[in-house]
Amino acid sequence: MMVNDTIIALATPSGAGAIAVIRLSGPEAISITDTNFNSVISQKALINQKTHTIHLGHIVEDGKTLDEVLVSVFRNPKSYTGEDVIEISCHGSVFIQQEIIQLFLRKGCRMAGAGEFTLRAFLNGKLDLSQAEAVADLIASDNEASHQIAMQQMRGGFSSEIAKLREELLNFASLIELELDFAEEDVEFADRSQFKALVDRIIFVLKRLIDSFAVGNVIKNGIPVAIVGEPNVGKSTLLNALLNEDRAIVSEIAGTTRDTIEDEIVIGGIGFRFIDTAGIRETKDVIESIGIKKTFEKIEQSQVTVYLFDSSSGIKNLDQVNFEIEKIKNKYPQKPLIIIANKIDKLDDVQLAELNKQVADVHLLSAKTGFGVEQLTDKLLSLINTGALRNNETIVTNSRHYDALIKAFEEVNKVKQGLESGLSGDLLAIDIRQALYHFGEITGEITSDDLLGNIFANFCIGK
Amino acid sequence: MMVNDTIIALATPSGAGAIAVIRLSGPEAISITDTNFNSVISQKALINQKTHTIHLGHIVEDGKTLDEVLVSVFRNPKSYTGEDVIEISCHGSVFIQQEIIQLFLRKGCRMAGAGEFTLRAFLNGKLDLSQAEAVADLIASDNEASHQIAMQQMRGGFSSEIAKLREELLNFASLIELELDFAEEDVEFADRSQFKALVDRIIFVLKRLIDSFAVGNVIKNGIPVAIVGEPNVGKSTLLNALLNEDRAIVSEIAGTTRDTIEDEIVIGGIGFRFIDTAGIRETKDVIESIGIKKTFEKIEQSQVTVYLFDSSSGIKNLDQVNFEIEKIKNKYPQKPLIIIANKIDKLDDVQLAELNKQVADVHLLSAKTGFGVEQLTDKLLSLINTGALRNNETIVTNSRHYDALIKAFEEVNKVKQGLESGLSGDLLAIDIRQALYHFGEITGEITSDDLLGNIFANFCIGK
Repeated sequence: MMVNDTIIALATPSGAGAIAVIRLSGPEAISITDTNFNSVISQKALINQKTHTIHLGHIVEDGKTLDEVLVSVFRNPKSYTGEDVIEISCHGSVFIQQEIIQLFLRKGCRMAGAGEFTLRAFLNGKLDLSQAEAVADLIASDNEASHQIAMQQMRGGFSSEIAKLREELLNFASLIELELDFAEEDVEFADRSQFKALVDRIIFVLKRLIDSFAVGNVIKNGIPVAIVGEPNVGKSTLLNALLNEDRAIVSEIAGTTRDTIEDEIVIGGIGFRFIDTAGIRETKDVIESIGIKKTFEKIEQSQVTVYLFDSSSGIKNLDQVNFEIEKIKNKYPQKPLIIIANKIDKLDDVQLAELNKQVADVHLLSAKTGFGVEQLTDKLLSLINTGALRNNETIVTNSRHYDALIKAFEEVNKVKQGLESGLSGDLLAIDIRQALYHFGEITGEITSDDLLGNIFANFCIGK
Repeated sequence: MMVNDTIIALATPSGAGAIAVIRLSGPEAISITDTNFNSVISQKALINQKTHTIHLGHIVEDGKTLDEVLVSVFRNPKSYTGEDVIEISCHGSVFIQQEIIQLFLRKGCRMAGAGEFTLRAFLNGKLDLSQAEAVADLIASDNEASHQIAMQQMRGGFSSEIAKLREELLNFASLIELELDFAEEDVEFADRSQFKALVDRIIFVLKRLIDSFAVGNVIKNGIPVAIVGEPNVGKSTLLNALLNEDRAIVSEIAGTTRDTIEDEIVIGGIGFRFIDTAGIRETKDVIESIGIKKTFEKIEQSQVTVYLFDSSSGIKNLDQVNFEIEKIKNKYPQKPLIIIANKIDKLDDVQLAELNKQVADVHLLSAKTGFGVEQLTDKLLSLINTGALRNNETIVTNSRHYDALIKAFEEVNKVKQGLESGLSGDLLAIDIRQALYHFGEITGEITSDDLLGNIFANFCIGK
């Protein structure tokens, strides 16, 4: 992996804005900038300026001024990458951004690959691997919960928990390996009961981390909620009502199939992806037509099902409603199902009582008046175990970490079994080393170019 | 105009990127940031930090960390706006951008209006009005020529030319007004022949500036070129060939009518907008059908007409071609017309000779092989008077400046006539003051809240 050249990339979002920031990192970052920078104020060359200082001047080439810019100087090792870093804050036209980058490419910089700044930060020990991964998560996070987890991970919360377990395990591994050197003398440097206690503790923590992935994953990716129901029962009014309740962000995101539409709504800091199937709109009856296949596909993809029906069409249809609910319950007995009677503002008290009586666990709602909307958001949030989130516990969101934790868990369990069955020190040591290996994979003590390549390929260029 | 509060806005393009920059300006910019910033390295509060320094730390609220950021401190008057300015370089997620801005809005900042940072720079004397306008032009410029003009204007090239004329005129105005105080003594402090020479020089310069607007306007907005011709004569191949020749930017921009498509191609640093009318595709014959109306509308909108025909369909159609060319020439005798015979790779020498003979001033081209493409770009560029551009002369691109220059020109001409007809000093003085007023409008010595509002409304928020 080549890390002795100087890389350059646009660090701010692409497109035009008031300003844009172009970042250079590497041994020549300051000197290359210097050759095409005329300071307005200082007589000193950038190369002689202190770290963390800003300089007004012009980017020039062959006497022609490309732009008036601010240049920020960061000196190795006090920079994001740990190398010399220059940030050029220029006017935000796409043309200027391109011209400045082109100029510095001609002057010997190389266009940075995806995530290459953060990769260098990792290689220079500024971040461990899980922290580096959290940087990408942080940039991708679009709600309170995923942001908070990424932030915690970036600041080392996750790494330090893993590192602590790893260190303790490493201590014991050393002691056991030391025993091997004195194998003929049959000594035990490592207190087996202390070791058992440690292994139990590690298993407990690993279990918690592994379990947290279920929550972590939904927080990171949003909780998929299938909205099931006939056309015109008020799906979009419901989504709008949920929106107004929380002043949150809605966006249309491409679904997994061409005829699936997803609306993301952030409720209580958690993203809910409401999955609607465009295809279903063509059919009149959910259960009796091809709609049933689409409906089941939709429920399949989701973690929560919302069955929505129009109560104003009268109680005559409630048999049909119950029939459909039964179908869903029979097929997905484990999946949380919220049954919503919409448009209850059109019912009188007698009809309401009848509705409550005939449909079990029905949630009364009027998307129009807002009645029942707040209770619905509470119900949705209660389905997510956000306890860990509230208690600031470490939550695993990264499937690579999850895989490594599962493998570490298996190895530590082998160690536990070995201890219980009185396995010899040399065999114990092998299993411990294997567990340590998987811990190391998470924080990046154990790594490979391939792995790094995969991780940083998911970053944007410029980070 | 309220300028004693502290404003905030996102300065980088909207959307997610590696980093984003949030800018605060105003008397409380540093202290407000301080209350929600924990420095990682320095113990000193931001308020005690030097100007043009950068500080790593965390944006925190109620003990919760929003993000790890770099904060740049710029102290009044050494900042863009001339006020205290803070730039927060945060992770580039939309969520973080919003959270930080929301936090500081709660802490007493106000969301900046469009162009409000630059407006403050103007009000604080960091830029004159034409320089401030050039900032918006600079950000909007997407090619070499418009960038160069905006850059020159932003650096004060235009202002200083206007200011020089204004100062000389002002000198004479003062002398003439001084004469009025000594009216009874019939003295002439202002040498009339020198004054005449000055007025002539001013008229000469104004004339040049006014004339430059024709060039400036096309450079700023691109040169509209109508491509006229039957379907399938190779329009898109031609556009692609032009593109390959110059490795320039193509974009589809919304035209003035719904069925008009424009492709912008940058040739030799100048933007050419090739206008194609979608509607024309439906007709077989340009002249004989409703196509003629659309064709003429298209030519109406453009500065240059390109008539493109397929020469491979044989010389039998050349009569029709000449008939159509005549129609266009008769209707628009003044408009440059380039006649292109495309697909000449399919012709033999005899057919080529026949083509040259029968169609006057035909430009032979094969979009497929690239033959004649370079000559076409030369021809297009030769239609634009880029002499002024090459000679680094001041070019007027702003229609507000153009209007003011026209008015100043009229007033100065009145002064000239007055001088020639021996008009009395007091009447001369009125005309001179009027001319001075229009000069002042350009650089902003003369201004109004309405005018400023109009100008800065065209800026993006954050600039």
